Amino acid sequence: MKITAVIMAGGRGERFWPKSRNTCPKQFLSLTKDGLTMIQKTVKRLEPLVSAEDVYIVTNAAYTDLVAEQLPDVPQENILAEPCARNTAPCIAFAAAVISRKYDDAIMLVLPSDHLIGYEDIYVNTLKKAIAVAKEDKNLVTIGITPTYPETGYGYINFGEENGSAYAVERFVEKPDRATAKQYLKSGKYLWNSGMFVWKISSIMSNLRKFMPSVYEGALRIGEAFGTDNYTYTLVNEFEAFPSESIDFGIMEKAEDIFTIPGSFGWDDVGSWLAVERINETDDDKNYIEGDVISVGTERSTIVGGKRLVAAIGIEDLIIVDTDDVLLVCSKNNTQDVKQVIAQLKEQGRNELV
Amino acid sequence: MKITAVIMAGGRGERFWPKSRNTCPKQFLSLTKDGLTMIQKTVKRLEPLVSAEDVYIVTNAAYTDLVAEQLPDVPQENILAEPCARNTAPCIAFAAAVISRKYDDAIMLVLPSDHLIGYEDIYVNTLKKAIAVAKEDKNLVTIGITPTYPETGYGYINFGEENGSAYAVERFVEKPDRATAKQYLKSGKYLWNSGMFVWKISSIMSNLRKFMPSVYEGALRIGEAFGTDNYTYTLVNEFEAFPSESIDFGIMEKAEDIFTIPGSFGWDDVGSWLAVERINETDDDKNYIEGDVISVGTERSTIVGGKRLVAAIGIEDLIIVDTDDVLLVCSKNNTQDVKQVIAQLKEQGRNELV
Repeated sequence: MKITAVIMAGGRGERFWPKSRNTCPKQFLSLTKDGLTMIQKTVKRLEPLVSAEDVYIVTNAAYTDLVAEQLPDVPQENILAEPCARNTAPCIAFAAAVISRKYDDAIMLVLPSDHLIGYEDIYVNTLKKAIAVAKEDKNLVTIGITPTYPETGYGYINFGEENGSAYAVERFVEKPDRATAKQYLKSGKYLWNSGMFVWKISSIMSNLRKFMPSVYEGALRIGEAFGTDNYTYTLVNEFEAFPSESIDFGIMEKAEDIFTIPGSFGWDDVGSWLAVERINETDDDKNYIEGDVISVGTERSTIVGGKRLVAAIGIEDLIIVDTDDVLLVCSKNNTQDVKQVIAQLKEQGRNELV
Repeated sequence: MKITAVIMAGGRGERFWPKSRNTCPKQFLSLTKDGLTMIQKTVKRLEPLVSAEDVYIVTNAAYTDLVAEQLPDVPQENILAEPCARNTAPCIAFAAAVISRKYDDAIMLVLPSDHLIGYEDIYVNTLKKAIAVAKEDKNLVTIGITPTYPETGYGYINFGEENGSAYAVERFVEKPDRATAKQYLKSGKYLWNSGMFVWKISSIMSNLRKFMPSVYEGALRIGEAFGTDNYTYTLVNEFEAFPSESIDFGIMEKAEDIFTIPGSFGWDDVGSWLAVERINETDDDKNYIEGDVISVGTERSTIVGGKRLVAAIGIEDLIIVDTDDVLLVCSKNNTQDVKQVIAQLKEQGRNELV
């Protein structure tokens, strides 16, 4: 059965401001020293499983040029432009409907565009196992990440009985508090919900028909219009009418036959500037330093220089990001407050900086 | 008797890097919100005592254009260009010799160009008292600052008996350690050495003749050549032969008839970026913020923005200075280490940044 990959690349990535902007969110940035952008790395690590012509990118209409530029091997018609943001369920339905025009049935990997994977061989092997499970019956498979610490920023997957190389999913749970997260780890029965899914087109379509019939039907109409003069009109009309709903809430929490494959492949969701020191090598003082920087007595800091010299003296636990028009100096404890700055800029109508 | 002012403006001011550069040291910068540079403020606060045509600026030859530009009312011939740096004794001898060509005798105020004064009326009154004392006999007068805390970064003046409105100076002492500085304050007999002096030309010249005869004679030869074709040649020749010596060490610590006038006029030597929050108003979170800055949860920090937005999030006790080609992020505890960065830049041959 044909293996296709749907990469979700519509996110705004405010948490990497000021490097990420509305005009160039995180998935289109390089945050590693190899110079490849997040989405380029996402496609590259799939090479052993999926060739570029079977990769589909669902993104915001504003980013289709960026996608085409960064992924020249992905066919232009595989770049699916959402006219507006409607969360992951409509995004996945749209892609499934388009792909189902091409094949009777196919495997569909659904992957975020802005995560990093440390151990790519293990990752590919995990996906292979997931594909094998997804081929059977109507199974929906989600990749669970074996937790390494009690993270409170992720959702968790509670799994039950083993079933071949997969585990039956008992339930999905929202972001826990610290005490609950610790219990989850202790129980040995919870995985992080990574947002990576594997299923047959036919499986997800039948679940959409059952649990989200309006999305299912709208997606079918978009699929029918694909390649015709009516396409843009149909797409905009149908998409705007879709509810904004995650695939987790819309399908996964309701469907039966949900399985999870535990993965341990150095997954990192690169959720904030704090991730940069995790995913790159640091110096003896635990700094990650990039660009033209002179540092004296500086520890545990991330410094991403721009076009100018950055002199960092006696600082600790800071994130410094220098761009042409914005400089960020942020305590590591306050990375979430970047959103407050962006909100202020929007209020001030300074959208060119957002 | 004519009152003249000699303003010493040859300093490099590395401690305000990256705003201060070799090409534009601290005395030519504005560090206050009124927009006036340090040297402009120095001349302006003398207006009740000394008119611009009686102000003499001794500076490095590289800075004469900057002086002329910032002080258009000071006559061009009063800008005295040192061909090389030789500390304060040769600087003062040079100015005294030039001024003594014009007047039989005159009062000479010797003032740094890069200090700030909070209470200008009290300052002028203190100088008036000093002038009165300096007019008598061969007195050399130094303005002592009544200490407000046990600073270890200044020299101190130990004074003895009262003599009219002045006190006889017992001795000058170098920068003390903390315990000694505390003893000085407790004794009530020590003032900070501010580097401001008042004397007659005839008094300082007779002391130079006695204690620094080679400087005295060289200065006289420069004075004789002033306004002739030989001037530049004589100036360069004589000046390079001068020893590099401070007026404190060369004269004040050896001469008799030294008096000090205690002053309390909000003096600040503006010795590092730490001074900026002292000499300006700060906000409710004890920040001094200048320029296009959005701050969230930021305390006790000095942020001097440049042409770009600075976003400061969750930071404490930092100094951030943004210029076109250099960004400084420095802990308040490490402002002295700016010199290390400058040293590294010089080693790297990046003199355009120094």
